[in-house]
Amino acid sequence: MTDFDIKYAEYQKIFDEYLSNFCDKLVCEPQILKESLIYSLKLGGKRVRPVLMLAIADLLGIDRTSISNFAVALELIHTYSLIHDDLPEMDNDDFRRGKPSNHKVFGVGNAVLAGDGLLNTAYSILFNECFNGNEYISASKYICDCAGISGMIAGQSADLLHENDTTVDEKILDFIHLNKTAKLIMAACVTPSILCGGKYYSEIKTFARDLGFLFQLTDDILDVEGSFENLGKSVGKDGAEGKYTAVRLYGLSDCKLRADLFCDRCIKMLEGLDGDTQFLKDTVYFVRQRIN
Amino acid sequence: MTDFDIKYAEYQKIFDEYLSNFCDKLVCEPQILKESLIYSLKLGGKRVRPVLMLAIADLLGIDRTSISNFAVALELIHTYSLIHDDLPEMDNDDFRRGKPSNHKVFGVGNAVLAGDGLLNTAYSILFNECFNGNEYISASKYICDCAGISGMIAGQSADLLHENDTTVDEKILDFIHLNKTAKLIMAACVTPSILCGGKYYSEIKTFARDLGFLFQLTDDILDVEGSFENLGKSVGKDGAEGKYTAVRLYGLSDCKLRADLFCDRCIKMLEGLDGDTQFLKDTVYFVRQRIN
Repeated sequence: MTDFDIKYAEYQKIFDEYLSNFCDKLVCEPQILKESLIYSLKLGGKRVRPVLMLAIADLLGIDRTSISNFAVALELIHTYSLIHDDLPEMDNDDFRRGKPSNHKVFGVGNAVLAGDGLLNTAYSILFNECFNGNEYISASKYICDCAGISGMIAGQSADLLHENDTTVDEKILDFIHLNKTAKLIMAACVTPSILCGGKYYSEIKTFARDLGFLFQLTDDILDVEGSFENLGKSVGKDGAEGKYTAVRLYGLSDCKLRADLFCDRCIKMLEGLDGDTQFLKDTVYFVRQRIN
Repeated sequence: MTDFDIKYAEYQKIFDEYLSNFCDKLVCEPQILKESLIYSLKLGGKRVRPVLMLAIADLLGIDRTSISNFAVALELIHTYSLIHDDLPEMDNDDFRRGKPSNHKVFGVGNAVLAGDGLLNTAYSILFNECFNGNEYISASKYICDCAGISGMIAGQSADLLHENDTTVDEKILDFIHLNKTAKLIMAACVTPSILCGGKYYSEIKTFARDLGFLFQLTDDILDVEGSFENLGKSVGKDGAEGKYTAVRLYGLSDCKLRADLFCDRCIKMLEGLDGDTQFLKDTVYFVRQRIN
């Protein structure tokens, strides 16, 4: 294991404890609702957003406990979006992280409610945080807007709209990638900055946006080059279902060049910041080279 | 028109202006997402929740402008719940307020996103309100919890779980009615109380809960006795689809007696409050006697 692997696993472990605490204290009836929420939360995944939030909190010298609830809330939002995205009339994915999607286990009706429940619970957590002061309200609102109709939901809607649309151009694809993918990564990275009064706000926002684009580019590359074993979900599905992927617009080789470009931009931005940014740099390379 | 009709229409008009302002200022791409949100918001309906919120604000002497955004946010939450409830794998309703349901016009995928978008936007509005002070945070959190997994979503989940379940008893039905129906009415009524430091908090909460039960009882009665013309939605559907309604558990005649009982309880609670409660009393009778 490299130093990066060790530190990434450490952050994952910290976050998984926050999440376990949340799940242990979750009071919710009927039992099937609780089970379906926890099923999707515990499917695991890379926990990229919470890991980024923790790493940037460390960089900015923020107490981890002050962001723990933000990290949980954001992962709840991310998880709700996956549950609704996997629904038959959305992306129609039967697998997520190598396991059956929420609706395959609990049925479509319960999966809709599980998603609604996670989204709502995320905001219940964040309203509690609001009592801590204006920075906490600003951070909560920032996360909410990144997730909403000028953020992730706009991206999902555009993604759905342009399925099987052969006129998709760079501008439309950028809109989808910015909103569908980059916005929640921006929420993860910018939250610690807002909580400490806006330190490196615009630098971190730009870094997170570029990392979001990189993330989506590698996602589209993996849809062509990945394997079910590594990805835990169907491969070649996006392209086959008429989804307008970056690979389809630019071709595989140009897509990789673009990924390298965004990778470089992320690294350059980090080099302009004080403090130890090595872990964040390695995270950028990790996203570029990931196989799942 | 009675005095009640005039005042009800006045409150509706006030709220419809709040909502129109909100819709006019709504910035959201792609266009189909914006259209689908506004389609469902402008389907109309009785606006019971905002009317109650305004009436109780008046009773407590709260400036209407301070609750306008809460009223809009709550109606967004109510509207999202109808969109998701109407989905084929939930209640499967093709009509809502005499017009095609959201998913019949925009497709299931877009309807899921429209619901998600309304829920998220409601909280974006409420996070903005949080900057006004702790009462505003408390009210926002109260609304969020009424809508969430210990509130409306729990009720919807239990409703789905007990479809075609012939062992449903009073306890389960009370759980469903309290959470699915009464909680959002409680959110409407209690919000003004929280905003003015908790005046009549427990009285208003009890009143709203009883009114919520009354509302669901008359809903179940109308499912048997109503007409499509008046209701704007399918009649006899709940009972036919194995949904465990109050009429099914108690019989039509006992169901009406129970409705009268909750009606009396609401009136008695209002009689214990200072100020002019005539409009609220008339609203209770209106809910009892409504034909839609």
